[in-house]
Amino acid sequence: MAAAVRVAPSAATRALKLLRTVQYTHPPSCPCHSNPGHHHHHAARPQIDAYAQRTWQTGRRGFASPMDPSQQKEYAFEMAASSIRFGPGVTQEVGMDFKNMGVKRVCVVTDPTVRQLTAMKQVEEALSREGVEYDIFDKVRVEPKDSSIKEAIEFAKPYKPDAFLAVGGGSVIDTAKLMNLYTEYPDADFLDFVNAPLGNGRPIDKQLKPLIAIPTTAGTGSETTGTAIFDLVAKRAKTGIAHRNLKPTLGICDPLNTRTMPAAVKASSGLDVLCHALESWTAIPFNERTPRPTNPIMRPAYQGANPISDIFSLSALRSTVKYLPRSVKDPEDFEAQSEMLLAATLAGVGFGNAGVHLCHGMSYPISGQNPGYQHAGYEVSTPIIPHGVSVAVSAPAVFRFTGPSNPERHLAAAEAFGVDVTNVKREDAGEALADAVTAFLAELGDQPKGLKELGFGHDHIDALVEGTIPQARVLMLAPGLAAELERERDQLRRLFEDAMVH
Amino acid sequence: MAAAVRVAPSAATRALKLLRTVQYTHPPSCPCHSNPGHHHHHAARPQIDAYAQRTWQTGRRGFASPMDPSQQKEYAFEMAASSIRFGPGVTQEVGMDFKNMGVKRVCVVTDPTVRQLTAMKQVEEALSREGVEYDIFDKVRVEPKDSSIKEAIEFAKPYKPDAFLAVGGGSVIDTAKLMNLYTEYPDADFLDFVNAPLGNGRPIDKQLKPLIAIPTTAGTGSETTGTAIFDLVAKRAKTGIAHRNLKPTLGICDPLNTRTMPAAVKASSGLDVLCHALESWTAIPFNERTPRPTNPIMRPAYQGANPISDIFSLSALRSTVKYLPRSVKDPEDFEAQSEMLLAATLAGVGFGNAGVHLCHGMSYPISGQNPGYQHAGYEVSTPIIPHGVSVAVSAPAVFRFTGPSNPERHLAAAEAFGVDVTNVKREDAGEALADAVTAFLAELGDQPKGLKELGFGHDHIDALVEGTIPQARVLMLAPGLAAELERERDQLRRLFEDAMVH
Repeated sequence: MAAAVRVAPSAATRALKLLRTVQYTHPPSCPCHSNPGHHHHHAARPQIDAYAQRTWQTGRRGFASPMDPSQQKEYAFEMAASSIRFGPGVTQEVGMDFKNMGVKRVCVVTDPTVRQLTAMKQVEEALSREGVEYDIFDKVRVEPKDSSIKEAIEFAKPYKPDAFLAVGGGSVIDTAKLMNLYTEYPDADFLDFVNAPLGNGRPIDKQLKPLIAIPTTAGTGSETTGTAIFDLVAKRAKTGIAHRNLKPTLGICDPLNTRTMPAAVKASSGLDVLCHALESWTAIPFNERTPRPTNPIMRPAYQGANPISDIFSLSALRSTVKYLPRSVKDPEDFEAQSEMLLAATLAGVGFGNAGVHLCHGMSYPISGQNPGYQHAGYEVSTPIIPHGVSVAVSAPAVFRFTGPSNPERHLAAAEAFGVDVTNVKREDAGEALADAVTAFLAELGDQPKGLKELGFGHDHIDALVEGTIPQARVLMLAPGLAAELERERDQLRRLFEDAMVH
Repeated sequence: MAAAVRVAPSAATRALKLLRTVQYTHPPSCPCHSNPGHHHHHAARPQIDAYAQRTWQTGRRGFASPMDPSQQKEYAFEMAASSIRFGPGVTQEVGMDFKNMGVKRVCVVTDPTVRQLTAMKQVEEALSREGVEYDIFDKVRVEPKDSSIKEAIEFAKPYKPDAFLAVGGGSVIDTAKLMNLYTEYPDADFLDFVNAPLGNGRPIDKQLKPLIAIPTTAGTGSETTGTAIFDLVAKRAKTGIAHRNLKPTLGICDPLNTRTMPAAVKASSGLDVLCHALESWTAIPFNERTPRPTNPIMRPAYQGANPISDIFSLSALRSTVKYLPRSVKDPEDFEAQSEMLLAATLAGVGFGNAGVHLCHGMSYPISGQNPGYQHAGYEVSTPIIPHGVSVAVSAPAVFRFTGPSNPERHLAAAEAFGVDVTNVKREDAGEALADAVTAFLAELGDQPKGLKELGFGHDHIDALVEGTIPQARVLMLAPGLAAELERERDQLRRLFEDAMVH
């Protein structure tokens, strides 16, 4: 890293001092936090600090250094977010946006439910008013599968749009991202870009077409992130594609569009926001992650907590604690609904640049292996555990587990719930946050008090654990989780046990 | 705004309630805050709320409504920021970034001083290593003039680069933005894009070439904003061009590059950060601004305080209070320097999406009409008042003046300086913040204790006021400033008087 070239006098001393002092300001204080081994890449952990220092002192060619970067910790973070426009009624501006970009032909992506809502009427009026040609794909399915996404891509290919417009929840926005991706790479294999280890994790090296996202739920924050999640049916796993270049050009957040959410949807999508905020805030710090990327295009969006994501995550957490209960309880409380839409977007910027970890990693098998639970307020043909419910149900167990990795952060999060942490001991930080989340869920109402109420028993745990293991992309950000597979299995088993009853 | 279409039952009532409740959460509480008249556009103020409500209820076509939008308040805000990469040593990644974008030919923009620094050596090595062709324009002048910018543009035109790379402080980055703009609009008149009233304020409707900015000072935050500031010599005024499409693609913030700043430069650029944070935090709220734009491309980047800019501004303020004194006092305190670089960038996102007001508006004539003051630590051929010094010198007077517009915000800002505001009365909020800023400047050291120490006397005030009046773009965001010209003049006169001695 050319320190010898850069620093004139007493180069080595100053560079070393710098390396020590330019640390991310909240270094982990617990040894079990130092978890850069990262799932199944290398189980043993070399003396990373010594390596890093040596490279610093001697490596003149930076990334071309003979040091193996897979052994080095990350030293930088990157923050990228879609532009965000927020205001009641802004949906109607979207036609002008496309016209301003010189776009003539838009592929509108939505689902059969949203197709009927005023949001879509506003969109069609806005596009027509500006003379922007469009065609509508309205067959997005909730919790998309690779097959439903391929169908969507096949729709887009012959239409050859100049741009995409997603109107809906996370499933719609994620599907639109993948339509944009695969129409730009028509010859790519579907698994090419899918996250490793299930796919090949190929980075997106082209600029995609403009994508504007108009969320109709206050949850996923997908309008600001470069992430798209789906079920890979052949592998029976939830996975996704994540890269900065996948993110929308603009997120149009119109609080008039989220008013149609039923209370149960408000609650579960709000719990997704809560966990985005809590998980990104407590994820391992970016500079504990390995490997250091050899090219900035390989730096993952899920890079660990960093000083910019922290600002967003903590702010979204505070808003959610304040406004989610109001938003769920009073359908006329538009202020709370509006604030929840903003919180969802802020949390999106936070976790979109830091990542999530155990609650999300464990949620995929929880919802995928649903023993038959039917959530109140969701009238659907097949029983589903809504995403936010499956995420939040393990949250008390998760933060009890992650507490020791960074007691200060867990205490700060508990404080955001209104807990007086003055006399809470550092070793009880995880417990304090777990209690705060448990109380919050109970007060919100209609939430399962653990996996048991979803119908899971001890017999299900092995399958749940095996369904969690492949979620390497998020598990690598879980503080305190072992790199060694058998220990990790054991930790996950205990986490699912602990999540049975809050 | 098509509320009747959107809302099924009791549409009007619900829409009206929504309009009232989706207010920005900290509405101004002082009548003198309601200052949407905005300088010299319309002096009288119609019943804007009634207008807005009527449109809401009856206007089905939104922007095509017969209502004159210039009479309506803004209802939305937009947040846009460059991607930011941060870490010691990240400069060396820049060659890979251009290669990843498919860029083959880069116009590197810098100044004669930075040309000699390690930052530029790193840049040249990084570009060469990846085989990216480049040419260097190193004639940027500090405090650029239109003539120096035109010279820079003439350099870029025949070179026909695929992308630009700015390495330096705000002057360099701003010059590079304008090289990028005018090479994309080769036939445009220079004044076309310049802010009104001095220029024509034409919006930038093309996507410009990629621009990467590598700041070597921790001050302007220009690496994240769509603003470029320069002297328009013929009009003897500081003005600029501001549009989201002018913002860099990526800001590469490398704390190794700011270590070369002398202490005096650290102090004055840090004071610029302080004022960016304080001014954007106290600017009028976005939804008090008029006119409501008829097309989103006309929504100014300097749109007033909003919930997202607030997060950045307050965070940058807290960091600056904590780290600027350390960074100035101890040249070996790399943690403080690194945090100041981050604070500068965060403040850039804040004011880049909210704006600045009186400190900046008044600073331009202060530095332009320098009676001969020479700032300690600046060894220059002609005496200059560094930008940060000229901005901060009026800050106590400014916040004493703006205090009544929003006492809560001024108290929160005073609290960020460590003031115990528990027993401060709301009517003393401005005074409390003014005192906090005064004490901070005194403790930082080597700062003028008012305009008098810069050599200004009462005889200079009329000229200072007349030099401030044309700064409409920032003055329109000043809470409490009168829309009517004679009253505004009077207020500015008293502000300059008050700024004579802290």
